[in-house]
Amino acid sequence: MAPAKLLVDIHTHVYLPRYANMLRARSSVPKIMTTLIDGKEQDRLLILDHEPSGGRPVGPQYWDRDQKLAFMDRHGIDVSVVSTANPWLDFLPASQAHELALELNADLEQYCSTGPDMTDSSVKRLYGFGLLPLVPEITTTSLLEAVKQISEAPHLKGLIMGTRGVGKGLDDEALDPVWAAIEAAGLVVFLHPHYGVDGKAWGDRDNGHVLPLALGFPFETTTAATRLILSGVFDRFPNLRLLLAHSGGALPQLSSRLASCIDHDPVVASRLKHDARYYLGKLYLDAVAYGPEELGFVSEVLSRANRYEAGSTLNEPADRKVGSKKVLFGTDHPFFPPLQSIEKWKSVVENLEAISSVQGWTEDEKDGVRGGNALSLFNIS
Amino acid sequence: MAPAKLLVDIHTHVYLPRYANMLRARSSVPKIMTTLIDGKEQDRLLILDHEPSGGRPVGPQYWDRDQKLAFMDRHGIDVSVVSTANPWLDFLPASQAHELALELNADLEQYCSTGPDMTDSSVKRLYGFGLLPLVPEITTTSLLEAVKQISEAPHLKGLIMGTRGVGKGLDDEALDPVWAAIEAAGLVVFLHPHYGVDGKAWGDRDNGHVLPLALGFPFETTTAATRLILSGVFDRFPNLRLLLAHSGGALPQLSSRLASCIDHDPVVASRLKHDARYYLGKLYLDAVAYGPEELGFVSEVLSRANRYEAGSTLNEPADRKVGSKKVLFGTDHPFFPPLQSIEKWKSVVENLEAISSVQGWTEDEKDGVRGGNALSLFNIS
Repeated sequence: MAPAKLLVDIHTHVYLPRYANMLRARSSVPKIMTTLIDGKEQDRLLILDHEPSGGRPVGPQYWDRDQKLAFMDRHGIDVSVVSTANPWLDFLPASQAHELALELNADLEQYCSTGPDMTDSSVKRLYGFGLLPLVPEITTTSLLEAVKQISEAPHLKGLIMGTRGVGKGLDDEALDPVWAAIEAAGLVVFLHPHYGVDGKAWGDRDNGHVLPLALGFPFETTTAATRLILSGVFDRFPNLRLLLAHSGGALPQLSSRLASCIDHDPVVASRLKHDARYYLGKLYLDAVAYGPEELGFVSEVLSRANRYEAGSTLNEPADRKVGSKKVLFGTDHPFFPPLQSIEKWKSVVENLEAISSVQGWTEDEKDGVRGGNALSLFNIS
Repeated sequence: MAPAKLLVDIHTHVYLPRYANMLRARSSVPKIMTTLIDGKEQDRLLILDHEPSGGRPVGPQYWDRDQKLAFMDRHGIDVSVVSTANPWLDFLPASQAHELALELNADLEQYCSTGPDMTDSSVKRLYGFGLLPLVPEITTTSLLEAVKQISEAPHLKGLIMGTRGVGKGLDDEALDPVWAAIEAAGLVVFLHPHYGVDGKAWGDRDNGHVLPLALGFPFETTTAATRLILSGVFDRFPNLRLLLAHSGGALPQLSSRLASCIDHDPVVASRLKHDARYYLGKLYLDAVAYGPEELGFVSEVLSRANRYEAGSTLNEPADRKVGSKKVLFGTDHPFFPPLQSIEKWKSVVENLEAISSVQGWTEDEKDGVRGGNALSLFNIS
């Protein structure tokens, strides 16, 4: 039995040593390269073409488990559900992606299983999201093998996934056997962005990483989740559990507009079983939104989903307490380090303060978002 | 003195006859072409390259003032502030854009001034947003001439603007004299999308117009407003009044993430006077969001802005009543017609029901959003 009030971080990344070494050996993006900055050697990570600011500094916080645990200790985080950071295996040929997925899943299971336990508890401090070799020309057999491996690994609780699928996005019918297997295994899919949108949208000014991270990332997640809804995936796989990064990007705010656009377009108006807003009730959202009003709102959008089930006569205001059960604390560590050295990372403190400040959530809902919801979702006890 | 409870539509479009004739004479997009559909001639509007579904049907509801008034009467709309629909003059060479802007502004002033009055009132039923010839190679003199023309036209209350500026977007310093003139004239800028994002994001499936309209449009508005904030325009022109289409797109939901990304990026962390969320308090938003939770949320985001002023020690929850004063009803007519012929358009009914259903707004706030706020903002009495 898990203690009642754990702080659980479900959005926290790693480049496992095997993966970091692979990035270091590469000559094209994504890669880790060592450069001289002010006369000192520094590792820099380049994960995008035309990376702003010459990439970002990386160090052992990306691959060293002790550093992950030290970060957790410093911020009072009891349990982390760790995932490989983007761009995963997207850039690899199918055979290499297949092999590396299986190796990295085994590495991550070991990373978790050989890590520490919580004091006086059978709960581990580290769990993980595995990876599928989602690249063009991969076979369904290979994808299903990875799903099976993850479902059998005791400490892997789901899998992290980008938005490209096997090259045509997540609304590709070729993925139906994969959704079926994931649904049957009860694994949670953590949907995470990497590509943003075409960089021409950002203009000529140097705004560092702000536009691709603050806007491009959420736009990509929003687009992928919307295309999934439009493809009928949630009608075909109603028990699929999808966790969206960054509180669902912009999907909650655009969901009524989406429903209206569907209703007004002859191509899609009759395609889905329910109003688009119904499907948002299928989603879990991390609480990586940095503001209390955002968290309150996204929990309302999850709450109202049953109002939009076909045939529903519900007409009550959304009770944000209900939707809060599907909102889960995350940090995005080791990304967004503070610019100055300080005890606690601002990005973490802000997300914790946001949870504490949501109007209309009692301490019960706040405790749930901080950890209880994650323990339930991932069946950790 | 205006009656207390008018319904005012501030997001309603027209292709003035002069503009529609120009589109009809064109052989490349944007254009209006007549095609045979089921043996009947039908005018279709193509405004995008690779327009989905072969464009959309257009008819006199786009250019005939009587049809606009009939639509208003049918939906109980007392006053409309009419704007030319996208893509405005964006595709024209500078000399033609200059000439046509002045002609269309004069046409729109006449469209309003020769239209009907409200019964027992000096309030007209039609007001307008003018146009600037915002195209590459236009001179500042030409832009300022159009600002002056609009500011002197009694029934033009502001101007509608796309996101390209004079070719480099709205964060282009070349526009500073234009912002200065707009600010000095007290004109409201209605910022409206047209281009969306690169269509590759939508994938291969035929989803009609849903993805470009439901997501692309709000992404574009969000990007443009964010780039404006990042460029410091609101620090340089603190009295600029910007009205964002479609309730600000995704900007409200992404605004705390934006603030955090700015704080964590060495390139921009010290550039602005205030936290990014402060600048959202400069904005007005239409109420074209189709859902009550969305409207309540965006009004909260406007309300909280002063919490994020530099040096503020405020720490109170946002009171969504305050922000509601800057939210204004709109229909997006004549876009989003119902698929079946019915008495009242679903898109209009949904937006009115959304306003009526916002939790935490009293009838005063709802009346304001329906019309009172627009009368104040545009000084209509």
